[in-house]
Amino acid sequence: MIMTSTNADVVSIASKLIACPSVTPARGEVFAVMESLLLPLGFTVDRFVTGEAPDGPVENLIAWRTTGAGPHFAFAGHLDVVPPGNGWASDPFTPDIRGDLLHGRGAVDMKGSIAAFVAALADIPGDLSGTVSLIITGDEEGPAVYGTLALMDRMAAHGLRPDLCLVGEPTSSQRLGDVIKIGRRGSVNMWIKVDGVQGHVAYPHLADNPIPRLVRILSAIEAEVLDAGTDWFQPSNIEITDLEVGNPATNVIPAAAHARISIRFNDQHSGASLIDRITAIAAVEGGVVTAKISGEPFLTQPGALSDLVAGAIRDVTGVEAELSTTGGTSDARFLSRLCPVVEFGLNNGTMHKLDEAVAIDDLKDLTRIYALVVRRALGG
Amino acid sequence: MIMTSTNADVVSIASKLIACPSVTPARGEVFAVMESLLLPLGFTVDRFVTGEAPDGPVENLIAWRTTGAGPHFAFAGHLDVVPPGNGWASDPFTPDIRGDLLHGRGAVDMKGSIAAFVAALADIPGDLSGTVSLIITGDEEGPAVYGTLALMDRMAAHGLRPDLCLVGEPTSSQRLGDVIKIGRRGSVNMWIKVDGVQGHVAYPHLADNPIPRLVRILSAIEAEVLDAGTDWFQPSNIEITDLEVGNPATNVIPAAAHARISIRFNDQHSGASLIDRITAIAAVEGGVVTAKISGEPFLTQPGALSDLVAGAIRDVTGVEAELSTTGGTSDARFLSRLCPVVEFGLNNGTMHKLDEAVAIDDLKDLTRIYALVVRRALGG
Ligand SMILES: [Zn+2]
Ligand SMILES: [Zn+2]
Repeated sequence: MIMTSTNADVVSIASKLIACPSVTPARGEVFAVMESLLLPLGFTVDRFVTGEAPDGPVENLIAWRTTGAGPHFAFAGHLDVVPPGNGWASDPFTPDIRGDLLHGRGAVDMKGSIAAFVAALADIPGDLSGTVSLIITGDEEGPAVYGTLALMDRMAAHGLRPDLCLVGEPTSSQRLGDVIKIGRRGSVNMWIKVDGVQGHVAYPHLADNPIPRLVRILSAIEAEVLDAGTDWFQPSNIEITDLEVGNPATNVIPAAAHARISIRFNDQHSGASLIDRITAIAAVEGGVVTAKISGEPFLTQPGALSDLVAGAIRDVTGVEAELSTTGGTSDARFLSRLCPVVEFGLNNGTMHKLDEAVAIDDLKDLTRIYALVVRRALGG
Repeated sequence: MIMTSTNADVVSIASKLIACPSVTPARGEVFAVMESLLLPLGFTVDRFVTGEAPDGPVENLIAWRTTGAGPHFAFAGHLDVVPPGNGWASDPFTPDIRGDLLHGRGAVDMKGSIAAFVAALADIPGDLSGTVSLIITGDEEGPAVYGTLALMDRMAAHGLRPDLCLVGEPTSSQRLGDVIKIGRRGSVNMWIKVDGVQGHVAYPHLADNPIPRLVRILSAIEAEVLDAGTDWFQPSNIEITDLEVGNPATNVIPAAAHARISIRFNDQHSGASLIDRITAIAAVEGGVVTAKISGEPFLTQPGALSDLVAGAIRDVTGVEAELSTTGGTSDARFLSRLCPVVEFGLNNGTMHKLDEAVAIDDLKDLTRIYALVVRRALGG
């Protein structure tokens, strides 16, 4: 086990961030706190507000520190949090330590990780050569239209392009360090509409009921096997999420029938290929498909970056991390366009729940892991 | 061709009835007019109002005239009409003769027929022995809870039970006399509910999507062949009339899914047998069925009554009537519990439509047909 000193107190940093009620989209106070933490560490900080209603405005922050030539390592994350909901044992925006746990909205998702970014960077020896940066958005939990995508544009404008990136989402499952995400599935929603001819149930020959045709389309979709999974991805999956006809009259054959499906898919597919596939199935029965791609899949092939993070986890905690691609989408899908990206952070057991809390020992271990990752990424 | 005299003017009677705006449920004026027409003809008239909101109150009328021992022949029908809707060429409740047509809501469905009942009965010679009656409801177009069923109770209380009954619904299709209905299909609606376990589309193993199970149930229902029709009935038919999930969230697997079906069925089935059958299909996939029977099927086997009516049609118009069981339900389904029932009336081309109208020649021919039917039913 390698122990590193932690000059900056990760618990106090996490507490300062939790004390800002930064429900998505976040702006203002929480970014001011973040800036005040980074400036003393020698970072250049660029805060900017962008976007318009309904998906904005959103505040984002880039911070970077260059000490000589060398690789560029980036931490990425978000300072916005989901609404706390009612029923907390303590105020969700008043950090509260009870026993070994720090409670508050964002404790694990992901102000705790961001506190560990800062505490780890406070600890990097000055003799390492390269660039470290933080890519921090105020809109990951919301529509994410003016969040990480806007940050990537802003970074390009500053001539910043990371070589390696770690997103601090809470990926750990049973104990800190057990899961690193090296990819995420893509996500697409589709709306299927089947038109018919309205009529009276007593005279079906004068009508054309769209519902049996929709049922046949949905049966065909249910029978589709998209793939059997890959080395790193589980099989792609289709869920029918809604049906709607809206016909109040028991004696009327309706004029149209609607369904909605959601597909989570691996890197055997693209959003466009799946839209083509479902469109062809629906067309057999006269159904029409409209679609919205929420995210394309990404995969960072296991290698240097995942080895680096897994090694740091092993050295600090003794845990062997599993490489995973499960779960929903994250902003890593955008950042993967720039460089290899992995996601690693705290235990996600309480994320988005009442009484969200992080183990104080985990915060300290995560800081040590992140510090090791940065040192080794910069050749230390 | 047999010509009979028509002392009472069927057109003027129909006009008086149309002038009463008796949108279902009908009460008051239209029954007062009806009573004033029947009392001079020697009928005993019993008007009564029954039922409570929401399906009542409803006015009904029984009228009967007995001249010696003999069979009891009943005419049945309704004085309520469906709402006229907007866009008529003339006021729907102001009878308007343009060319050969009398226009007004109820002209064919079925104030025209009721006018022909009255005009025909005005013409019956006094030497015929037996009972003639009219069974007239103010709620056939509505829920029909306090209509013909209440009339049947009231008739029993008066000791009245017909031996033959003719319902004056507009059964003619292309020309007056071409269709006599000797039966009607039954009707049942069923609601199918499938419960599942709500969850997130990214974690389908933690959820149980009810929609694929509902789709399998509906596929199985679509594959059902209830029968191939009978000598007198077309095949029974199932229509899926509604689908409903009501899930606004694209990333959520819903907790429940609903469908509604409507079955029109012949005398190979009963409402109960179909409910059992669909319930068994749904149960395979954990679906639960609730049901409402709107009407059981009935069939008056072709014979004396249909021969009587077809013969009168032939003798007045030269048309050979087809015996049919098509179309929706009618109050004949109730009256068939008492005695043989057939339905015969005007052309239904404009029923329930804008600018409902009846050919004046048809009104006169129908009066002659009804008069012949009554004479022959009473042995004249
Ligand atoms: Zn997060
Ligand atoms: Zn009618």
